[in-house]
Amino acid sequence: MGMKKKDNAKYNKILEAAVQIIMDDGAATLSTTKVAKRVNISQSNIYIYFKNKDDLLKQLYLMEVDCYQQLFDQVAQSNVSTKEKLQMYVKALYDVSVKNPDSMYVIEQIKQIPNSPVSVTDPSFVGFESNPILDLLNQGIAEGILKDVNPTIYLSMIFNTIRMNSINAKQGQQSNSYEDISSILFEGMLK
Amino acid sequence: MGMKKKDNAKYNKILEAAVQIIMDDGAATLSTTKVAKRVNISQSNIYIYFKNKDDLLKQLYLMEVDCYQQLFDQVAQSNVSTKEKLQMYVKALYDVSVKNPDSMYVIEQIKQIPNSPVSVTDPSFVGFESNPILDLLNQGIAEGILKDVNPTIYLSMIFNTIRMNSINAKQGQQSNSYEDISSILFEGMLK
Repeated sequence: MGMKKKDNAKYNKILEAAVQIIMDDGAATLSTTKVAKRVNISQSNIYIYFKNKDDLLKQLYLMEVDCYQQLFDQVAQSNVSTKEKLQMYVKALYDVSVKNPDSMYVIEQIKQIPNSPVSVTDPSFVGFESNPILDLLNQGIAEGILKDVNPTIYLSMIFNTIRMNSINAKQGQQSNSYEDISSILFEGMLK
Repeated sequence: MGMKKKDNAKYNKILEAAVQIIMDDGAATLSTTKVAKRVNISQSNIYIYFKNKDDLLKQLYLMEVDCYQQLFDQVAQSNVSTKEKLQMYVKALYDVSVKNPDSMYVIEQIKQIPNSPVSVTDPSFVGFESNPILDLLNQGIAEGILKDVNPTIYLSMIFNTIRMNSINAKQGQQSNSYEDISSILFEGMLK
């Protein structure tokens, strides 16, 4: 494979630098040159860890999504009503977003770039590779628990509300509890 | 000023091409070269109408915002309760977004680019130069009509929900009436 010696700490440093660049300038202008400069290593060093820019973005995306995915898997296995499951998903999203406030923005940014290495749907909302929340929203509508609107409306509302709250928390602005956010979302969505 | 003869139709064509580029590739990679190619004119021709790329983006932004601003001004002058005013704003947003489904995305994209010629706040939500809705949300919270959360949560919820609906309408997906969207938003926000 022609690989030089890999160093886990450096791998993480590269991904962290990519996150910072995305937070500062957006994902569209990210380049391996920029990342190398930020980590203060040579560009060829980046290619020990990543095949190219797209591979870097894809691995970063998978890392960020993984934090959510683990919690989502727990929810999927729980044996409760659709309504309770939805609330558990929203709680999981909330918890990760507060602990890792950049994650939703990074995920959204990587999906939004033209010819994104992970883009599968439209550029308008935060997405995850598999979207268990969308399935559950459809189920909630079918069961007559949720108002009958396009579930993408709910997705957009849930993601953007929680993301906004995590930005507020990060910037030291008034941020709100899960209970506050949940009451706004569910009183709107439930029939 | 060294200006050549201006042509209103060409001015509009340039702005329309810029909208298409933003919809296809995002605003971050827009250039006057790209726009000129799309309109099939020389790049120097662009400079008859716009000083530079930033000027083009700024004029496009102002044009898109203007559609909303006119309706917002009408609402501001009406003599009704805070709750009714809020509903009128949401209706105005809804109406423009359905008639001109690209507008909110274009506005958001232009605000999001690094060193945006119009950026004043954070990159996380659609914004307008003057934000009468934010003032009104603050008033609603102070009057005890709305739940007491950071009003940026409401802004994000309102803008993104309406934007998602306009995308659904444009893509021929299930789109929802103002009444549906309004019921979700206000049942969530009102105490």
